Amino acid sequence: MVERLRGFRDFYPEEQEIRSEIFRIMKESCRQFGFREIDAPSVESVELFANKSGMEIMNQMFSFSDKGGRDVTLIPEFTPTLSRMVAARKDLVKPLKWFSIEKFWRYEEPQSGRQREFYQLNADIIGSESYLADAEVISLGGYVLRRLEIAGYSRIRLSSRVLIDRLIEKMLPGKKQDVYYILDRWSKISPNDRDSFMEEKGLDKDAVLSFTNGNILNGLEDQELQNLYSIIDYVKSSVGASIEIDLKIVRGIAYYTGCVFEASDTEDKFRAILGGGRYDSVIAQLGGENTPATGFAMGDAVLENILKAKGLWNRKKEPQVFLAPVDLPGRSFAVKVASEIRSLGIRVDLNVTERGISKQLDYASKMGYEYAAILGENEAKKGSISLKNMLTGQQMEIELRNIKQLLDIIK
Amino acid sequence: MVERLRGFRDFYPEEQEIRSEIFRIMKESCRQFGFREIDAPSVESVELFANKSGMEIMNQMFSFSDKGGRDVTLIPEFTPTLSRMVAARKDLVKPLKWFSIEKFWRYEEPQSGRQREFYQLNADIIGSESYLADAEVISLGGYVLRRLEIAGYSRIRLSSRVLIDRLIEKMLPGKKQDVYYILDRWSKISPNDRDSFMEEKGLDKDAVLSFTNGNILNGLEDQELQNLYSIIDYVKSSVGASIEIDLKIVRGIAYYTGCVFEASDTEDKFRAILGGGRYDSVIAQLGGENTPATGFAMGDAVLENILKAKGLWNRKKEPQVFLAPVDLPGRSFAVKVASEIRSLGIRVDLNVTERGISKQLDYASKMGYEYAAILGENEAKKGSISLKNMLTGQQMEIELRNIKQLLDIIK
Repeated sequence: MVERLRGFRDFYPEEQEIRSEIFRIMKESCRQFGFREIDAPSVESVELFANKSGMEIMNQMFSFSDKGGRDVTLIPEFTPTLSRMVAARKDLVKPLKWFSIEKFWRYEEPQSGRQREFYQLNADIIGSESYLADAEVISLGGYVLRRLEIAGYSRIRLSSRVLIDRLIEKMLPGKKQDVYYILDRWSKISPNDRDSFMEEKGLDKDAVLSFTNGNILNGLEDQELQNLYSIIDYVKSSVGASIEIDLKIVRGIAYYTGCVFEASDTEDKFRAILGGGRYDSVIAQLGGENTPATGFAMGDAVLENILKAKGLWNRKKEPQVFLAPVDLPGRSFAVKVASEIRSLGIRVDLNVTERGISKQLDYASKMGYEYAAILGENEAKKGSISLKNMLTGQQMEIELRNIKQLLDIIK
Repeated sequence: MVERLRGFRDFYPEEQEIRSEIFRIMKESCRQFGFREIDAPSVESVELFANKSGMEIMNQMFSFSDKGGRDVTLIPEFTPTLSRMVAARKDLVKPLKWFSIEKFWRYEEPQSGRQREFYQLNADIIGSESYLADAEVISLGGYVLRRLEIAGYSRIRLSSRVLIDRLIEKMLPGKKQDVYYILDRWSKISPNDRDSFMEEKGLDKDAVLSFTNGNILNGLEDQELQNLYSIIDYVKSSVGASIEIDLKIVRGIAYYTGCVFEASDTEDKFRAILGGGRYDSVIAQLGGENTPATGFAMGDAVLENILKAKGLWNRKKEPQVFLAPVDLPGRSFAVKVASEIRSLGIRVDLNVTERGISKQLDYASKMGYEYAAILGENEAKKGSISLKNMLTGQQMEIELRNIKQLLDIIK
């Protein structure tokens, strides 16, 4: 048997219907916030990502030579493509509020919360340098968490590269790369490893600690810090999300230029649920006009892990009706009944096998249909169906001309 | 500037929102027919497609060596993956009714209705050998055409390889490959080319014509022909689609074993809108149990061409509200108002720039928002908004505690 490739997933209906519902909630949330959907190629020139994405992503690209000898890659992230799309069109009215749900690929060792192929929601505001744009994308992120019912189990942390750079310049001048390195890894490495790194690099430990515990912010007068406080107010009054400043949030990717943020589960058991920030230079780097931009990405794999951990993975499915014909006149009648029920927007399945009635009902029961109806010559003549609730066994008769009653029965 | 690759498309909001709505209609239609959604990898072993897909597809595969040296391909079609998924699970309760909307790739010369990257709706019934399953998938196809409002501009044509094989054996024994070849190309090549092909291959012209004009079916007693008539009855009474037998429909792909069908525009100006058929051997070929299956695929590119040609491409968009704050208290109030309006499920955008009020309204007008509200200290104090219809200029005041009134205003 030909096997599925490593790091790739098959999604059977029992999983995919839930994921599809989650994507639907994401889309609806974005639209409620006035974001408009876009879509883009899954294959791009390798060149598009060179120097824009960080080294980590560059090393993980699912790249290859196509039949025309071009160096291409399956897209590892969305920001370069988005920036290319903005740079290519001078007629766009800004600011743009755009979102997409796309597949992405990274050639790395598969592990929990990371596959070689995954989905991401990306949402961005392009063309506003105001903190209001950062506040709005973070609010959208918080709203999605709320709609997915994990707002209570998650928190948003934010920081600003502008602020961090200023503070480093003041407290640890000339040590920018090393400070970024230690802040980014602070929660991931042991206290011993932190200490030896700081010693080796000649970083003043107290100064670094004032970043990691936030003491450096006490009484600080700084416009960028004021912006972060304004963002926090905005997000709280917009979506009531739990949000705080944390200078350890620096985000690994190369291109961020201002506010950066992450949402994670309150216990920090999983990777970040979403992450993003401001990237004001990328569009110009790609040949477009100088255009400020901010946004976030939210992957499906970590989200799935946390939803499962919190018992929130199973979403209510739509009810369904199964029609089981017993004879030839029943078959014709079933096709007509199915058509009527479908026009009400209700999911209806009807037998497509030569099976007898008991095997049909056995199938309906195994498939989890909530209602079933046996249809034969008698029902066809009377023009009515007898609908059986498969859980309670309760039966009720509905005339086909009153089929709208089904909408009340199947809520 | 880094360019987009040839044969790939960017979808900006003005196009993507329509496409997204079309995909939503497809999904809803499939669910109403009791089909359940699945999802699958975009990259598979080349081996999965070898010998299952026809030579045409094999030659067009977007294949490459991955970093682990495996021969892999971006998927060119869905049936082999679907069959692999079925073969891998022995516990599935059959028949399965599955659908998916996925991206596919083919490395061929881009042309109208064919890009290197495209979307397809795939819908299949697996595990029923009855003609009822063929009838049900064709009905679903017809229903999607109806929901997309092109049922009146399209027709479904069907045939059966079982029937064609029997008739060839009777009328043109030993000429199966040549008859398939000429039937498949009948409408695409000139009468002269047809004649010289038939002469060259020693095909009796009158016999071939009896296939192409359907005369061979007159008075024929054949169970498979009866099945086709039953399918036609079923589809007509289920979705009222225009459907007829046409022995020229043979479908290029290698694996079909029974009923085959296509839907195309009534004037035959475009390629097929959807195509499919029965493929009873594929799952067993992939190491699964012997499992009958039937289904169809519907690409986005031809669909888009015909919807545009018929003036049906532009779908109604949801109305939207733009909130324009004039001062700092207005900003805070706007965030609160936006949150309330969003909770009603209405799309609302609010200013995320430092622009003055006239530039904000200019933006709202260019973006096509139907309603706008200017919010300042006064409105915040009164706790109400003044909503302006951007088309008529009409204004109305709504108290925030009565914000639900918006649902009546914005239908």
